[in-house]
Amino acid sequence: MKTSIAPAIPTNFERIFHPQNIAIIGISAEDGGTGFGSGMFLAIKAMGFEGQIFPVNPKGGNLKGSHIYKKVEDIEELVDFAIITVAAKHVPEVLEGCLRKGIEGVEILSSGFSELGTEAGYELEKKIKSIAAGGIRVVGPNCFGIYCPKSGLTLLPGPDLSRQTGSVAFLSQSGGNAIDLAHKGKWMGIRFSKVVSFGNGADLRETDLLKYLADDASTKVISMYIEGIKDGDAFFESIQYASKNKPVIVCKGGLSQAGLRSVASHTASLGGSRIIWQSVLRQVNAISVQDLNELAHAALAFSLLPPGIYKRISVVGGGGALGVGACDAAEALDIEIPPFTTEQQESIGKFLPKPGSSAINPIDVANPFVPPQVLKEVLLEAAKDSRIDLQIIISLLYHYKVLATAMGLKVTEVAPFQELAETVCDVVKTTGKPVVVVLPNPKKGLDDFDTTEMLMIARREFLERGLPVFDELSDALRAISQVNGYFAQRNANHE
Amino acid sequence: MKTSIAPAIPTNFERIFHPQNIAIIGISAEDGGTGFGSGMFLAIKAMGFEGQIFPVNPKGGNLKGSHIYKKVEDIEELVDFAIITVAAKHVPEVLEGCLRKGIEGVEILSSGFSELGTEAGYELEKKIKSIAAGGIRVVGPNCFGIYCPKSGLTLLPGPDLSRQTGSVAFLSQSGGNAIDLAHKGKWMGIRFSKVVSFGNGADLRETDLLKYLADDASTKVISMYIEGIKDGDAFFESIQYASKNKPVIVCKGGLSQAGLRSVASHTASLGGSRIIWQSVLRQVNAISVQDLNELAHAALAFSLLPPGIYKRISVVGGGGALGVGACDAAEALDIEIPPFTTEQQESIGKFLPKPGSSAINPIDVANPFVPPQVLKEVLLEAAKDSRIDLQIIISLLYHYKVLATAMGLKVTEVAPFQELAETVCDVVKTTGKPVVVVLPNPKKGLDDFDTTEMLMIARREFLERGLPVFDELSDALRAISQVNGYFAQRNANHE
Repeated sequence: MKTSIAPAIPTNFERIFHPQNIAIIGISAEDGGTGFGSGMFLAIKAMGFEGQIFPVNPKGGNLKGSHIYKKVEDIEELVDFAIITVAAKHVPEVLEGCLRKGIEGVEILSSGFSELGTEAGYELEKKIKSIAAGGIRVVGPNCFGIYCPKSGLTLLPGPDLSRQTGSVAFLSQSGGNAIDLAHKGKWMGIRFSKVVSFGNGADLRETDLLKYLADDASTKVISMYIEGIKDGDAFFESIQYASKNKPVIVCKGGLSQAGLRSVASHTASLGGSRIIWQSVLRQVNAISVQDLNELAHAALAFSLLPPGIYKRISVVGGGGALGVGACDAAEALDIEIPPFTTEQQESIGKFLPKPGSSAINPIDVANPFVPPQVLKEVLLEAAKDSRIDLQIIISLLYHYKVLATAMGLKVTEVAPFQELAETVCDVVKTTGKPVVVVLPNPKKGLDDFDTTEMLMIARREFLERGLPVFDELSDALRAISQVNGYFAQRNANHE
Repeated sequence: MKTSIAPAIPTNFERIFHPQNIAIIGISAEDGGTGFGSGMFLAIKAMGFEGQIFPVNPKGGNLKGSHIYKKVEDIEELVDFAIITVAAKHVPEVLEGCLRKGIEGVEILSSGFSELGTEAGYELEKKIKSIAAGGIRVVGPNCFGIYCPKSGLTLLPGPDLSRQTGSVAFLSQSGGNAIDLAHKGKWMGIRFSKVVSFGNGADLRETDLLKYLADDASTKVISMYIEGIKDGDAFFESIQYASKNKPVIVCKGGLSQAGLRSVASHTASLGGSRIIWQSVLRQVNAISVQDLNELAHAALAFSLLPPGIYKRISVVGGGGALGVGACDAAEALDIEIPPFTTEQQESIGKFLPKPGSSAINPIDVANPFVPPQVLKEVLLEAAKDSRIDLQIIISLLYHYKVLATAMGLKVTEVAPFQELAETVCDVVKTTGKPVVVVLPNPKKGLDDFDTTEMLMIARREFLERGLPVFDELSDALRAISQVNGYFAQRNANHE
């Protein structure tokens, strides 16, 4: 496989992702925000987009006090980016207008193109491609558009996405997956540089966008959901190029026979073979994930853990079965939980309640109410073992609900999540070894809703200190193993 | 392997699981409910246990107005069951008192026995065994006890478990897993007949309890978490016996080398070999699961789906990627999502919004705001296909948050979950084919907390109508495949 890469196309992506001014074409003055166009107008307003937004509709009129332009060319100011929501048949003429106006790129949210599988649909999409080739970049059609927290662009229907910017990019052939991951990221702590739902990918799609992200300084982790690819060689060359410097996480939908049938893509040059995909992804050191949740967990780990290989870990939790489960799950992922020596067990054990605790590793603190300061001592002591690369703490904060109820207090008043976040953060600073937090919650019902809320606040406390949080130990271990796999192969390739 | 089974031991389990009167031994009058004994006293009171509770402590005194007996023999009334929470060294004399008092069974919550790995610990546990052999049944030591929703017995620390009784039993060597599953079941809709955390299992443990549950009329699904077993032949004979009539779901902890080390069991006659375990479990038609979440999903499916094999399904959801994911996941689990004929697609398609929808199967309704009455027509139409054994509806109710915000209303006022639950229930009644509901929620953050709450209320609406609900499609499909596997082998064995 060639490792050279074609020179970047002369697109000013800055104008697309961080536009000064945008136009929304296909807005209705009367639909009260239920249409795509007016929905996007309200969503981008709600996001606090700082530039000007020009609504466009051949009928003209007014929308919430904004003048509606009849044509994009009627706008006097420079427009960098346009959002097109008109019916499919009107898209070509609208796109031509955008090209004439000197707009750098557009997203076409409208559907009714090649995904219909009809001759008319293909013809319309061909027209779009040919107009794009004339000098305007197109995201879509049949997509949810671009989300860029820094500039305030948002996906359909995403008025409530986070404005916190970060290092994770996500490219998605599926609009549903794009909006879902953007929402998941908001509470999971995945901060995005750019999310692009590219739908049918008439112009910009997996390969071009990947090339762009490979050299994008604001992106440190690339993730993608793809169903079909257009040019296998170019795509895998781009991954190989990108993954030399940053992890590329790939979720490929439609690898089963039935899934392949369900993928409405006629451009997949690598078909649906799971074996071929997995072997090629391995060859280019991409991280292959099964579904969107696994992708999210991997993105979180890659964005919050320092680059490195974490083969030997300590696990601190409460309850013997947690430790057993940790060992079973870790071994399957080639992660070791080495038993501590008798001397180490003694020095750790002196902090633990008796009887019922164990300092072997996994460390069983035996009691969910062990104070954070004690857990800190345990973590500091365990980190002294030079074999340990990373520590996991499984915090059973949900047990404080029972204590709070008995004390007649709120669980948020009783559970020491803030102190725990501070002490764990101190441990990371002191030891230089990352700590991953697991916050399981078996109490999600309506009468334990305060517990669910407390755990979400606790999660925020950890995340604000840069500590990755997972709901389940198995998710944490799998994500760590993906970090290990990527950096191990990258190191081997560099040798 | 022998298929005969030894006659049941002459234990009156009715007195143990549904005691009229109980004693709690080792209660302190002064600890304010923070000790195990007084904690259990308050927990069982909170559960609304209808019988008498006699607190016992050598010091005597009063607890919340209840007289504390100095010895269990001082109680005048008949006592069926006792909860022992005294320090390990005092357990033998307390247990002897219980035997003399004619108590049928006890649970020993105290730790400090064989799990210590010390000579003294083994000796103490041996004493317990020999006293038990004299005519009293023992659950524990080092356990969280018995939870029986019907009688109001509860686990440590479980004052807030559900009193709704049901058909699922759970036996657990781990107290943590017992309390976690009991809590998960409360909101997931798993209703329990009996949960037993048996800890070290000095007397009653996996085999005896399994035999009892095999013939227990109130138990229709048996689930268990085990680390080590005492008598492999007897255990597997019991599973084989039980699984002829009801599913037995087994989660075996400690199957890895590291996990085996972490299991503090010295009685495991079948060691830790994953291959042996899996092959033997398959032979006796037990359902083998990887972890507690998988166990919970399987228990939910077995308890709510009518016995049967659901090989061919329809999936109704929104968004193409959901359909692709459904196909990929289903195929790996030997579940088929057969494409509908052109005629069927036309009759289903006439209910769907255009463009963007697809009636092939998976059915993509394209829009999260399709009214429940329309979804009902789609489900009714799809069920007419005689190939379809079961239907899955993936409801994207969380999208209503954006709509509610735009309308200035609460999401609970806007999302039509109740109507959806009613219509889905109607579909099941009309078609005779089960419907499984998937309620994903990518919006779990603090500013979407109303969405999380709405989805928990929606879940309750579905569950109250007997409709199983899963968070993720992959969990639902795996659980269905486990139902399929069990009944397929059972049918084959009966032929």
